[in-house]
This record gives sequence, C-alpha cells and structure tokens, in this order.
Amino acid sequence: MKLLEERIRKDGLVREENVLKVDSFLNHQMDIGLFEEMAKEWKRLFAGCPVNKILTIEASGIGIATIAARAFSVPVIFAKKSQSINLDSDTYSTKIQSFTHGRTYDVIVSKKFLTPHDHVLIIDDFLANGCALMGLLELVEQAGAVAEGVGIAIEKGFQEGGAKIRAKGIRVESLAIVESMDAKTGAIAFRNQ
Amino acid sequence: MKLLEERIRKDGLVREENVLKVDSFLNHQMDIGLFEEMAKEWKRLFAGCPVNKILTIEASGIGIATIAARAFSVPVIFAKKSQSINLDSDTYSTKIQSFTHGRTYDVIVSKKFLTPHDHVLIIDDFLANGCALMGLLELVEQAGAVAEGVGIAIEKGFQEGGAKIRAKGIRVESLAIVESMDAKTGAIAFRNQ
Repeated sequence: MKLLEERIRKDGLVREENVLKVDSFLNHQMDIGLFEEMAKEWKRLFAGCPVNKILTIEASGIGIATIAARAFSVPVIFAKKSQSINLDSDTYSTKIQSFTHGRTYDVIVSKKFLTPHDHVLIIDDFLANGCALMGLLELVEQAGAVAEGVGIAIEKGFQEGGAKIRAKGIRVESLAIVESMDAKTGAIAFRNQ
Repeated sequence: MKLLEERIRKDGLVREENVLKVDSFLNHQMDIGLFEEMAKEWKRLFAGCPVNKILTIEASGIGIATIAARAFSVPVIFAKKSQSINLDSDTYSTKIQSFTHGRTYDVIVSKKFLTPHDHVLIIDDFLANGCALMGLLELVEQAGAVAEGVGIAIEKGFQEGGAKIRAKGIRVESLAIVESMDAKTGAIAFRNQ
C-alpha cells in the first residue's frame, strides 16, 4: 500500500538491530486518517470473506483493529496478556514468547467471545518472527473458529514470521513488507506487491 | 447517556466487591457502533474546546479513545505501562497504583507527542478510585500541555475518583455514573445527569 510505504519512509526511524520505530503514527501516537485508509484496503482485500469478528492482541494492535472493525461493521476482541497462571476455565489461553521484552506471556481470550460460529480476521501492527500471530491462531483453533486471514500493517520480510504463517495455509495481507533497512543511511526497501 | 445505561443494564454483570463486568461490549469484546455513539456525545459535550489530541492508557481505553479521536479528527496517544525502571530521558513518566492488579506501574509517554502546544482530552473506559486518571493528568502537566477535560464511559459514583478529579477543577464527562449496584439482584442504579 503506497500510502503506508510513503509514510514509513517519511516518518519511520531505522535503528540498529532491525528496529523500525513508527511510534509517531502507528503504535504510540496513532494517525486515525491513515488507519481508515488501511482499513479500507483490508476491506477490499478480504471482500467476499465472511468475516464476523476481528481479533487482535493488546496493546499496540488495538487502535488499528478498532478502525478495521468499523470498516467491516463487526465487533473486535483483543487477547489479553496475563502474567498470572491463575487462568480460569472460561478462557482459551496460550503462551507467546516476546523477543522484544525477553519473556513469555500467557495470552487469553474469553470463551464467550470466540466460538465455532466465528469467522475471524486477525489484525496486528507488526509481523516479524510471528510468535504473537501463531498464538492468536492457536486461540482461534482452540475455539473451533475459522481464521479467514491476517491483516498486518508492517511485515518485516527479512524475518521468518510471514513465511511460517503462509506455510500453514493462512492468508496474510501485509500492507507494507520491508525487505531490508539500513540503520546507517535510514534507507528502507519494500517488497513489490 | 441513555444508550450506554441501557446497554449496561442489558449486558453488564454485577459481581461481588463492586465489580461490574462489561467485557461483552466495552473492554474485551468491543461494540464499535456503541463507541461511535459515545464519541458523538463527547464531541457534543466538548464542542468549543480546542482539543487537538486524545490521551488514553493501555489497554482497555485504546478502542474507545481511537473512535473518539476519529470523531474529533485528532491523533490519539496511549500511555504505556512499563515495569522496567530503565526509563529514558525522552519520556514523561509517573507511577500508577493498580488496586485491581495489586501493584504499581510506571506509565510513560514520549515527550515528542505531548507538548505545551497540546490541548488534551483524556478518554478512558472506567473511573473508580481515579489513580489511572491522576497519573494521566500528571503526564499532561509534566508536558506543560492543557487538560481540556476527561471523557469516561462508566464512572463508579460510589468511589472517590470522580469527586477527587473534579475538585482539581478538571471537567469530567462520564456517560454513565453508577450510584449503586447489587451483586445479589443484579440491580444497577444510575445517577441522573
């Protein structure tokens, strides 16, 4: 999606160790006009899919997922990170490893809100190693719901997450795929889509 | 706001120890149509205030704040909860005590996104003891920004937060104020507004 790629080039900051900071418009301060254009694009891409619910994970995916849910006219659920092991029988749960924070979270969704009747579109801001996404797909599977696909704002194409998820037969629509970036020059190369 | 009060009566669950569960429409699964009506109401209430930014705190405020930001045509920032003490000089930070989780968080906002030019509307899902809100107001004050007011979905009128914040001269617009609730009967009484 050209608009997002241009915005990343304009306002994204490339840091050492493959860090791409987009906190001025995507995941700390959030540009709602941009989110609306992204939501429209996912709506176009997943037209014809019987999506009746959007699923994301706290915290940085919630804003994007909320605007996407508005475009699809469906409710949105966010999976909650929990550090307690005191999980009750009313929730689906799985473990997600966070490389950024160097630890493992329990992630939970209430059983009431994810059922075998649901056709779920998963939305998140980043796809890198795919750990968070694998966890969300696991929750969808536990619920017996159908994963219609995944909408990602920025995929790091040089990490393994995208290939791993697509190899499972899951449709992944990333609006910008970064092929490479250079912390010294700030240059970012996107995959042609 | 009648629509929200009716929805709380219909789908809210009153539990012991003054817990009001509204996770089917407000803060786990989120009803975007309802959020749009709430956003319209805050837009009406704060008409004439020069709001140029909305501030909330992760995670459960983000969805509501995002739809409110759309109604106001302004960006939204969410304050991040951090458990590291490794806070850098690029952030404003404060501590917030969470009674629900029995611990204290560091809460941070990047200095880039909150400045003396900003007129901030704070949005959150709940107001009870007011700790989270006091923390957000502290961040606005550190930045030298102006707090135009606070928009809350559900205020627990029997707890001290609302009175405490209003006593500071801050305008608080809660769309539903629960005066009392009864876990045995499930009855909820709202304050007339």
